[in-house]
Amino acid sequence: MIIITNPGITQDQLDHIREQVEARGMRTRITRGDKQTIIGCIGDDDVLREMALHRLPGVQSVVPVMKPYKLASRQFSACLTEVRVGDAPDQVIGGNAIAVIAGPCSVENRDMLRETALSVRDAGAIMLRGGAFKPRTSPYSFQGLREEGLRFLAEARATTGLPVVTEVMDPRDLPMIEKYADCLQVGTRNMHNFSLLKEVGRSSLPVLLKRGFSATIYDLIMSAEYILNEGNSNVILCERGIRTFDNSARYTLDLSAVPILKSKTHLPVIVDPTHALGLREFVPQMSLAAVAAGADALMIEVHDSPEQAKSDGNQALTPEIFAELVPRLRGVAAAIGREM
Amino acid sequence: MIIITNPGITQDQLDHIREQVEARGMRTRITRGDKQTIIGCIGDDDVLREMALHRLPGVQSVVPVMKPYKLASRQFSACLTEVRVGDAPDQVIGGNAIAVIAGPCSVENRDMLRETALSVRDAGAIMLRGGAFKPRTSPYSFQGLREEGLRFLAEARATTGLPVVTEVMDPRDLPMIEKYADCLQVGTRNMHNFSLLKEVGRSSLPVLLKRGFSATIYDLIMSAEYILNEGNSNVILCERGIRTFDNSARYTLDLSAVPILKSKTHLPVIVDPTHALGLREFVPQMSLAAVAAGADALMIEVHDSPEQAKSDGNQALTPEIFAELVPRLRGVAAAIGREM
Amino acid sequence: MIIITNPGITQDQLDHIREQVEARGMRTRITRGDKQTIIGCIGDDDVLREMALHRLPGVQSVVPVMKPYKLASRQFSACLTEVRVGDAPDQVIGGNAIAVIAGPCSVENRDMLRETALSVRDAGAIMLRGGAFKPRTSPYSFQGLREEGLRFLAEARATTGLPVVTEVMDPRDLPMIEKYADCLQVGTRNMHNFSLLKEVGRSSLPVLLKRGFSATIYDLIMSAEYILNEGNSNVILCERGIRTFDNSARYTLDLSAVPILKSKTHLPVIVDPTHALGLREFVPQMSLAAVAAGADALMIEVHDSPEQAKSDGNQALTPEIFAELVPRLRGVAAAIGREM
Amino acid sequence: MIIITNPGITQDQLDHIREQVEARGMRTRITRGDKQTIIGCIGDDDVLREMALHRLPGVQSVVPVMKPYKLASRQFSACLTEVRVGDAPDQVIGGNAIAVIAGPCSVENRDMLRETALSVRDAGAIMLRGGAFKPRTSPYSFQGLREEGLRFLAEARATTGLPVVTEVMDPRDLPMIEKYADCLQVGTRNMHNFSLLKEVGRSSLPVLLKRGFSATIYDLIMSAEYILNEGNSNVILCERGIRTFDNSARYTLDLSAVPILKSKTHLPVIVDPTHALGLREFVPQMSLAAVAAGADALMIEVHDSPEQAKSDGNQALTPEIFAELVPRLRGVAAAIGREM
Repeated sequence: MIIITNPGITQDQLDHIREQVEARGMRTRITRGDKQTIIGCIGDDDVLREMALHRLPGVQSVVPVMKPYKLASRQFSACLTEVRVGDAPDQVIGGNAIAVIAGPCSVENRDMLRETALSVRDAGAIMLRGGAFKPRTSPYSFQGLREEGLRFLAEARATTGLPVVTEVMDPRDLPMIEKYADCLQVGTRNMHNFSLLKEVGRSSLPVLLKRGFSATIYDLIMSAEYILNEGNSNVILCERGIRTFDNSARYTLDLSAVPILKSKTHLPVIVDPTHALGLREFVPQMSLAAVAAGADALMIEVHDSPEQAKSDGNQALTPEIFAELVPRLRGVAAAIGREM
Repeated sequence: MIIITNPGITQDQLDHIREQVEARGMRTRITRGDKQTIIGCIGDDDVLREMALHRLPGVQSVVPVMKPYKLASRQFSACLTEVRVGDAPDQVIGGNAIAVIAGPCSVENRDMLRETALSVRDAGAIMLRGGAFKPRTSPYSFQGLREEGLRFLAEARATTGLPVVTEVMDPRDLPMIEKYADCLQVGTRNMHNFSLLKEVGRSSLPVLLKRGFSATIYDLIMSAEYILNEGNSNVILCERGIRTFDNSARYTLDLSAVPILKSKTHLPVIVDPTHALGLREFVPQMSLAAVAAGADALMIEVHDSPEQAKSDGNQALTPEIFAELVPRLRGVAAAIGREM
Repeated sequence: MIIITNPGITQDQLDHIREQVEARGMRTRITRGDKQTIIGCIGDDDVLREMALHRLPGVQSVVPVMKPYKLASRQFSACLTEVRVGDAPDQVIGGNAIAVIAGPCSVENRDMLRETALSVRDAGAIMLRGGAFKPRTSPYSFQGLREEGLRFLAEARATTGLPVVTEVMDPRDLPMIEKYADCLQVGTRNMHNFSLLKEVGRSSLPVLLKRGFSATIYDLIMSAEYILNEGNSNVILCERGIRTFDNSARYTLDLSAVPILKSKTHLPVIVDPTHALGLREFVPQMSLAAVAAGADALMIEVHDSPEQAKSDGNQALTPEIFAELVPRLRGVAAAIGREM
Repeated sequence: MIIITNPGITQDQLDHIREQVEARGMRTRITRGDKQTIIGCIGDDDVLREMALHRLPGVQSVVPVMKPYKLASRQFSACLTEVRVGDAPDQVIGGNAIAVIAGPCSVENRDMLRETALSVRDAGAIMLRGGAFKPRTSPYSFQGLREEGLRFLAEARATTGLPVVTEVMDPRDLPMIEKYADCLQVGTRNMHNFSLLKEVGRSSLPVLLKRGFSATIYDLIMSAEYILNEGNSNVILCERGIRTFDNSARYTLDLSAVPILKSKTHLPVIVDPTHALGLREFVPQMSLAAVAAGADALMIEVHDSPEQAKSDGNQALTPEIFAELVPRLRGVAAAIGREM
C-alpha cells in the first residue's frame, strides 16, 4: 500500500499516519518529493484495506500494491485450470480444445428439450444448457418449470450422453438441483449474490459463473474468489455482455474480457454471445469472434422452434443454423492453433 | 402492442402475423403508410410479450403500448403510499414530511451502535440503519456480526425508540431478521435477486428496496412489482448511485430518478447519498440536493469514529457534522413547502 | 510519479528503470516491500507522463502523484473565480449570488426571441441564451439561422439589457460571433474539439464550457485548462447530463459534479437541467436540486410557444412556468445561505 | 410516425393532434384499443420529427417508423461500398479482401516513420497511418509536428508506395492536409464535430470516420450521413472502443458493432484494436477477433521503438510482433472465407 500525502501536510499529520499504519504491524518508508511526500507501507495490504486510511488528515490518496484476489490469480496456479463437466474425454472446459455448450433458454417441455438436445449433440455440442429456474424482470413472465424442468434435463442427458448445466437462483434450491445437474450456473443477476456464491462454493459440482452485466473484470474475479475460497476449484468464467449507453443490441459483448481475464486468472473463460446480443442474426459472427479472441468455450442458445419459445425466442438459433455454424467455428479454432 | 413491418413485406407474411396474433385472442387493425404498414394489436399486451413477434418474417419492430408494471404504477393507486416504519407519529416514509434515516454502515459493537443511535436520534433521525449482514466484494473483508449485530440493533431501538432497518441478503436469514428488525433492506446487489424479492414480498415488514447500481428506472419498478405482487404493499424505493464511466466518486448519484420515479409510481422514493459518493465531504451538499429534488427521505451514514470503522469509514459523517446538517435540510424542505 | 514493480523483477530491470527515469532529470527512491518494490520518482511528473513507463520490463503499474492540470486547480488561485458577463452589477457568474440564464434552444425569429427575452428578464434571468448555430445529430434537421440569428440576439440584448451567450461550433465563425455575443458557449459535442478550445482561449469573451456527455470530471477540467492556457481566464463550467445505460430521460444529470468540480477548481460551475432531462416536467425539481447542490447558475430553456419550437420544444418551459420557478429557486438559495 | 395516446385522452385532444399532423400534409389513421388509442401518421416522418409532438396534450409517446438516415442505409445502395485509397489493386477498403492499415500513433521524425513504414509494408499493410495533428487531453502533451509531419508522411509514401491516412482536427487545416494525404481521418473526439464533417464531406479524398467513444451505432451512422450528404460517398466507419464502467483496458472494444453496422449500412467497417485497448499485449487477440467478426480492415499501431514513443507507446506493437500477427490474421480470414 502506498499513501500519497497532500502537498501541505504537517509533520504531526505525517507522524499520525505512520503510527496508525505501524500499529497494524506494518513498516513504513517515507519518500519526500519536491512537492509531495509518499509513505510506502510494507506488509500485508489486506490489513490496511480494512482501515479508513483516506480519512486520516493529510492523506491525498491510497494506492494498493497487491491484488486483492489470491486463489483466482495466475500467480496462484502454475497451470491453467481445466474443468471436467462429464465423463467423456471431450467433456472438459479449458485446455487446448474449444467446447460448445448449447440448448434452449428455458426448459419448456420434454419433447422440445429432447429434440434440441439430440440436434446440438449431433452438431458437436459437449454440454446441454437449459433453465428450469428463470430469473425474469417481470413477475408476470414465465418463471420456469422448476423440478419438472430438472427432470427433463436429466432425461435428455440419459438420451444424449450430454452433461447438463442449469441455473441456480436460490441457495435453498441447491440440494434439489444438485440431484439432477452436472454443472451449476450462477446467472448475471446473481454474480453479486454472495450467499449464493458461498453455497455453490461448497458444492462438489463445477460452477459456471456469469459476469454481472455491470460487473467489472475485477468484480468478476472477486466473485470467483468467493467460490474458490469455499473450496470449489472448478469455476468457469463467462462473459455475456455488459450494459452500456448503446441500445442497438441488448447488451454490449465485451470480447476483450477474454484475453484480459486469461492474463489475470488461471480459470477457463467462455462466452455467451446469445444473451449479449439478444438478436439471432448476429450470433454466428460474434461466436466466430469469440473463438478468435481465445474463448475456451461458447454457450449458444438453440431452440427447435424459436417462434414458439416461452422466453427470448428472438435470439435462439435454429438447430439447422447451429449445425452450419459449428464447422465454421472449427475452422477459426484451427486457424489460431486450437481444436474443437 | 404495435407491430411495424418491413417496407417490402408480402401479403402472406402480413396474413401470417395477423393469424399468430389473433390466435392469442387479440384483434388486429392494419394501417398502410406510403412505405410501411403497421399492425395495431388490441387486447392484453402481456399475452404478446411472451411471443417472439420480432422473429416473424416481415416484422421490423414491436412497440409495446401498455406499461408492464401494474401494482407499482400511479394509475393503480389514487393516493401516494406512506410507509409506516414505527409507532411514533413521525415514523413514516412518504407524505409531506421528509424523514432522515441514519446510522453506521455496519454494526460493529454494542457501544458504538448505542452512541451513534443516541446521536442521530437527538439530531432528528426517525430510523436507525446498520448492517448485520454485509455484502462485500471480497470474501476476505468483514462480513458482519450476523445475529449478534441484530441483537445490538434491537437494544439500540429499546434505548432510543428508533425503529431499525437492516439488510437481508439471503432468504434463509429472513425469519431471524424479522424477529429483530422493523424494516427490511434489499441491497443494490440483490435488486435482481428475484427469490429474495418474493420472500420479502411475503413478509409483514416494510421493504426498503435499493436500486441496483446498473438498474434502469424501469428495472427498479419491476423489482418493486415482484414484492407488491406477493402482497407486501409497503415498499420504499431508494436511489443510491449508478455505475457510469466517471470515476471521480464511487458511483454517480442519479437525482433525476427521484422526480421520474415519483411520476411513474405511488411509492415513496428516498436517497442514499453516502453510498453513491463514497466520500464524506460531498454528502451534505448532495443531501440538500436530494431534498430539493423531492426525496421523501434520506439515508445517511453516521459513525461516531469514522477512522476506526470496519467498512467504508471514508464516507460516514461524524455525529457532529450530521447534527449540523439536519437543520440545513429542514431549511431546504421548508423552502419547497415540505416539513421535516 | 510512483512506479510499482512486478513481484519477480530482476536487479537489471530495476536498474534500467532507474536509468530511464534519471535520464530525464528526475531523482529516484527505492522502497522494498515484502513482495514488491516501488520506485518513487522525484521531480516533474509531466516529463514522465510523456514516457511509456508501463512498457519498461518489470513495471506493474505507474501512479501519478501530481495533478495534470495547473491553471484550473484550486491550488492555483487563492480565491474563487467570478466571471463578469455584462456591465450590470448582477451580471456575474460565480460568487455568493446564484444566477439564472434563460432563453430558447435555438433562435427562430425576431419576435419569438424578443418576447422570450422580455419574459425571462422580467422573471429574473441575468443572461439570455439562444443558438444561432445548432449542432444537430441529423444533417436534415434545422441547423440554425447563423448570422441572422446573431443579429436577433443583439437586438434582444438592446431591448432587454441582457447579455447574450451563444454557441460557437467552428473556429472560422468566431470573429463573426464575437461581434454579437457577450459570452461564447462550447457545446457538449465540442468539449474535446481542441482546435476550438484553443481558439476561444484567445478570445476576450468569457467561455461557457459544457461538459461532454461522456466526459469525466477530469476531462472537463483538462478542456478548461486548454482555454486557460491560451490566456482566457473567464471560463464557466457547465454540467448538462451524461450518457448512461438508463433511458428514462435523455441523459443522466450528474449533480454530484457540482461539489466535486468546486473542490478541485476555482472556476464557477453551472447546471443545464433542460438538456440533461429533455423532458419539461422534471426541469423545475432538478433546478431546485442544482441550486441546493451548490451550482453558481442555472441555464434553463424557455420558449414562448414550445409546441411550435423548431428544436427540442419538448423540453422548454413556458414563460409562465419559468416565472413561477424563479421565486422557488430563490427560496432554496436563501435556505443554503446564498442570494439570487 | 405512430402516436400513442394516454389512456384518458379526450376527443378534443385527439382532434387537436390530428389537426396538427394533417396541417403538415400528412394523413392520419386512428386505431382504438381497449384502453388506448393510437394514431398512425402516413407521410414523411422528417416533417414530424421537427414538431414537438410529445408536447401535445394527450400524447403518451411518439414512435418513428422510418429510419432517419437515408444515404448510409443498406436500402440506398444495392451493393456494398468499396473505398479505394490508392492506385494499387489491393489498396481498397471493403470487398472480400481484408486490409491492414498500420503505422505509429504520431509522426515523430523522418527516420522513425520511414523505418516503420517499410516494416509494415513488408509485413502486408496496404496503408500507412500516422498523426501529424494530435488531439490530446492535456494542452501540455505533444500536439504533433503539423505540416512537417505531413511532409514526412508524403516521403514515406514515396518510399513505400503506401497511401497515407492522417487525422484532420480543424476545418482550416484541411487544404494543407489534402495536399499530402490519401485518406482523411476524423477522430473519435470529432465524430460529433458537424462543421468538420461537412468540410470533409466536400473533399475528394475518402474519409475514415472513427466512432465517438460514447457514440451509439445510430450516432455513428448519422455522422456518416453528414459526410455523404455533402457529396463524398467514400466513407469508412471505424469501431475503436467505447467508454463503459469497466476500467481494465482504456476503452471497451465493441466488436458487435461490426455485424450490426454491416446490417444497417453499405459502408465498409473497420476496427482499431490498439486505441480501444491501450495495452499492447491484448492487441493481437482482438485483431484476430475483429477479422472473425467481419471487419473489412484493421488499423493497428506499430512503432519501431515503442519505449521511446512520444504518445501512447504503451500500446504500439513492435514491427516484429506485427509481422508475426499478419499471417495469423490471414489464417482467420481464410477460415471465414475471405482473403487478406
